[in-house]
Amino acid sequence: MRIQTLTIVGVGLIGGSIGLAAKQRGLAERVLGVGRRQASLQQALARGAIDEGFLDCDEAVHRADVAVFCTPVDMIAEQILGAAPGCKAGTLLTDAGSTKAALVRSLANRLPAGVSFVGSHPLAGSEKRGPEHADANLFDGKVTVITPTADTHRPALDRISAFWKALGSDVLIMDPEEHDRALAITSHVPHLVAAALVSLLTPDLLPLTASGFRDTTRVAAGDPALWTGIFLQNRDAVAAGLNRLTNTLNQFRQALTHSDPVALDQLLAEAKRQRDDLEKNSSRRA
Amino acid sequence: MRIQTLTIVGVGLIGGSIGLAAKQRGLAERVLGVGRRQASLQQALARGAIDEGFLDCDEAVHRADVAVFCTPVDMIAEQILGAAPGCKAGTLLTDAGSTKAALVRSLANRLPAGVSFVGSHPLAGSEKRGPEHADANLFDGKVTVITPTADTHRPALDRISAFWKALGSDVLIMDPEEHDRALAITSHVPHLVAAALVSLLTPDLLPLTASGFRDTTRVAAGDPALWTGIFLQNRDAVAAGLNRLTNTLNQFRQALTHSDPVALDQLLAEAKRQRDDLEKNSSRRA
Repeated sequence: MRIQTLTIVGVGLIGGSIGLAAKQRGLAERVLGVGRRQASLQQALARGAIDEGFLDCDEAVHRADVAVFCTPVDMIAEQILGAAPGCKAGTLLTDAGSTKAALVRSLANRLPAGVSFVGSHPLAGSEKRGPEHADANLFDGKVTVITPTADTHRPALDRISAFWKALGSDVLIMDPEEHDRALAITSHVPHLVAAALVSLLTPDLLPLTASGFRDTTRVAAGDPALWTGIFLQNRDAVAAGLNRLTNTLNQFRQALTHSDPVALDQLLAEAKRQRDDLEKNSSRRA
Repeated sequence: MRIQTLTIVGVGLIGGSIGLAAKQRGLAERVLGVGRRQASLQQALARGAIDEGFLDCDEAVHRADVAVFCTPVDMIAEQILGAAPGCKAGTLLTDAGSTKAALVRSLANRLPAGVSFVGSHPLAGSEKRGPEHADANLFDGKVTVITPTADTHRPALDRISAFWKALGSDVLIMDPEEHDRALAITSHVPHLVAAALVSLLTPDLLPLTASGFRDTTRVAAGDPALWTGIFLQNRDAVAAGLNRLTNTLNQFRQALTHSDPVALDQLLAEAKRQRDDLEKNSSRRA
């Protein structure tokens, strides 16, 4: 795959990493970056993640053959709908947002002929932000979920698939709603729980935290505005996941308050089995 | 500090690390290890964590000047009460258990004259087990909590304090009940929550887990029997901590189901502020 002009909207950790990877792997002739502040564009230019910086989103997207929107999930639909009318025929649009169903719904039947959108979600985030943390190998061996719909043209799907594979990613095709339900469990509910856990800390407890607490709560350092958008876009699936978690916590609570060692041990042993499976699966992928 | 004979009961990750650290730092003339299986004693001997292995706990503790019990928290009191009557005058006993109040209560006024116990908890665990993961630097810069009571003799407290400092640890003196309430929040509730979260996984979700899910659930790989003991020994504080967590989760749930971006953002921003403080505190200590 070879792209003449790749436009990246939002040159933070994810956008910057796409730029670096695309350039290092010879995927794009020219990479344009869109930022809200000149300072982040300068940083992205200095890192070599982009060739040219733009404060005007539409202008940069109109020059693109492929454009990737790496902005907060609650801004993507508006940015795409704003830029699409001026796009060249054959322009392919995608994104890197953590939720997919609301976005895909917002764009259905609203793009001009000749402009395609296929949703993407690279599972390669971090609590870190900004182009200074961009990494050309961020997507290496990581999964990117692509969420076509019944209206998606096969060639567009194939090109987006090739795009993420060229960046080093493994590609998984999923229905947008199914993606959101899955990510509610594997990412959004864990984020809420990490935030709730760290909220229980009082200053006197700080010296009594060890690596377990730090690991369990690490993601809670993520950007609040970004995550507020994610939660609201995926509200129902997150609420359902939270209910499932509450039910499971109640099982633990009952075993605990009944001082039932057999029930506690069973619950913990089942959790350990699943966590050990996860570890095996991750090592196999790495 | 210099110990002639140091006995370590339980030569797993913690016990093995104490042996390695004590020998490498010239803290003990001779290190005796107690194990339930000849195989783990052989491993500890091969790692150089102990000089001599024993299957009989009492025999090894009777030779000790200082003995550290690194066995599951629900076994420690019985082992100490069993061994104490045959101990030499002046023998100092301590432990490495994750809960303190129940243990300290079980031993109050039940040790022979001349034998002292002071409870300890090095915050240096891991989900890994066994002497093969022992590490001479495990306690370096980590906090060890020591939990004396009104009956603890000052010289015994000072020696136990010197013992952990000699192993590289920072020492914090706390009341046993206060320790247990604190650790319920910083360790036991996070463990329960990690176990509950990983229990929500189904096999189809495995490829959709990324580093966030792995970090948030890492501790759930810990030994179920060990953790069942910890939860039951600290039942009331864990149940109280779980209630506080449930209340906080309900605040998130309400903000979510009301689609309230301001409330969500505030909750997440407060969590981020606390997580960032934690990170700063950890880096300062490291």
